[in-house]
Amino acid sequence: MATRGAYAKGVVKREEILEAALAVVAEHGYRKASVREIADAAGLSPAGLLHYFGTKEELFVAILRARDDRDEQEYAGEDVVQAFLAVTRHNASVPGLVQLYAQLAAEAGDPEHPAHAYFRERTARVEDFTRAQVAADQQAGLLRDDLDPAWIVRTMHALADGLQSAWMLDPSLDMAGEIEQFLVLLRPSH
Amino acid sequence: MATRGAYAKGVVKREEILEAALAVVAEHGYRKASVREIADAAGLSPAGLLHYFGTKEELFVAILRARDDRDEQEYAGEDVVQAFLAVTRHNASVPGLVQLYAQLAAEAGDPEHPAHAYFRERTARVEDFTRAQVAADQQAGLLRDDLDPAWIVRTMHALADGLQSAWMLDPSLDMAGEIEQFLVLLRPSH
Repeated sequence: MATRGAYAKGVVKREEILEAALAVVAEHGYRKASVREIADAAGLSPAGLLHYFGTKEELFVAILRARDDRDEQEYAGEDVVQAFLAVTRHNASVPGLVQLYAQLAAEAGDPEHPAHAYFRERTARVEDFTRAQVAADQQAGLLRDDLDPAWIVRTMHALADGLQSAWMLDPSLDMAGEIEQFLVLLRPSH
Repeated sequence: MATRGAYAKGVVKREEILEAALAVVAEHGYRKASVREIADAAGLSPAGLLHYFGTKEELFVAILRARDDRDEQEYAGEDVVQAFLAVTRHNASVPGLVQLYAQLAAEAGDPEHPAHAYFRERTARVEDFTRAQVAADQQAGLLRDDLDPAWIVRTMHALADGLQSAWMLDPSLDMAGEIEQFLVLLRPSH
């Protein structure tokens, strides 16, 4: 029972650290968010912080997982296209997380990178879920039914990722507005 | 004249180094392409290599510029959409360069990063050139004329960047095939 209590405490502490880390990355960006700064925000030493996560890369993957969980809870039950636009709009308010995601995604192309498995699993999970909803929207006459739902989902995903890169270079770009124009092409013609 | 000769020699040497660096990055990838490895391939010491480029980041930006020059020469005069598809297909054969581009693009979101100016200039140059050609294709009836050519170009650019990220995680993805399906949506209806 003592072990279980210690485990539960560890889980709570881990959640607290992730909250602090999310705030530091969202505010200062990925490149400038050091292990020391995140440790300070969580009231720990750098070594104490890494005790919970192993390595800096694993800490950053845990931050992205925490953000996925929050986004998925926030928009659960909403129409998939509207939720996608809402997440895109929200992202424009957390440039540090967008930068962290883009940076780790680029590094994770290497199968040996610690974030590789996370990104593959994330793609499969998000695309499976979204594809089923897109197919339902097609059956309901909300989206053109002559397009492969898997292609629609991959394209929306790639478009959002690519627009994030463009937006990081030029923050005046309206990511959600760009995607809305793409969605017009997916509407059934009358 | 001696100075001019030395300058011309420097330019030639710089070209040779870029050729060697392109080959090393294309073969081994960005993360694994060390300054030492590129120096070895160019027959220089690491210090000798950096004499020509200043820093590792500036060397990598020079590699991307050399690749842009080559792609632009290779497809000069071709239809813009066909050239875009041809570059996309070619990219699937040089994963190291795709990785270098994606990694530097993600880092370059930070205005203080040495590649920031390169990526902003590249986006402006490529999109200005492509937009004029897309507008001409619209006038010629090859593309729908009810879509903003600037939006078409930004979307093709973002889609290509996003598909590169997806392809790095899953090399079975057919990047050019995905884009061809998007292009179908841009065709005028008859």
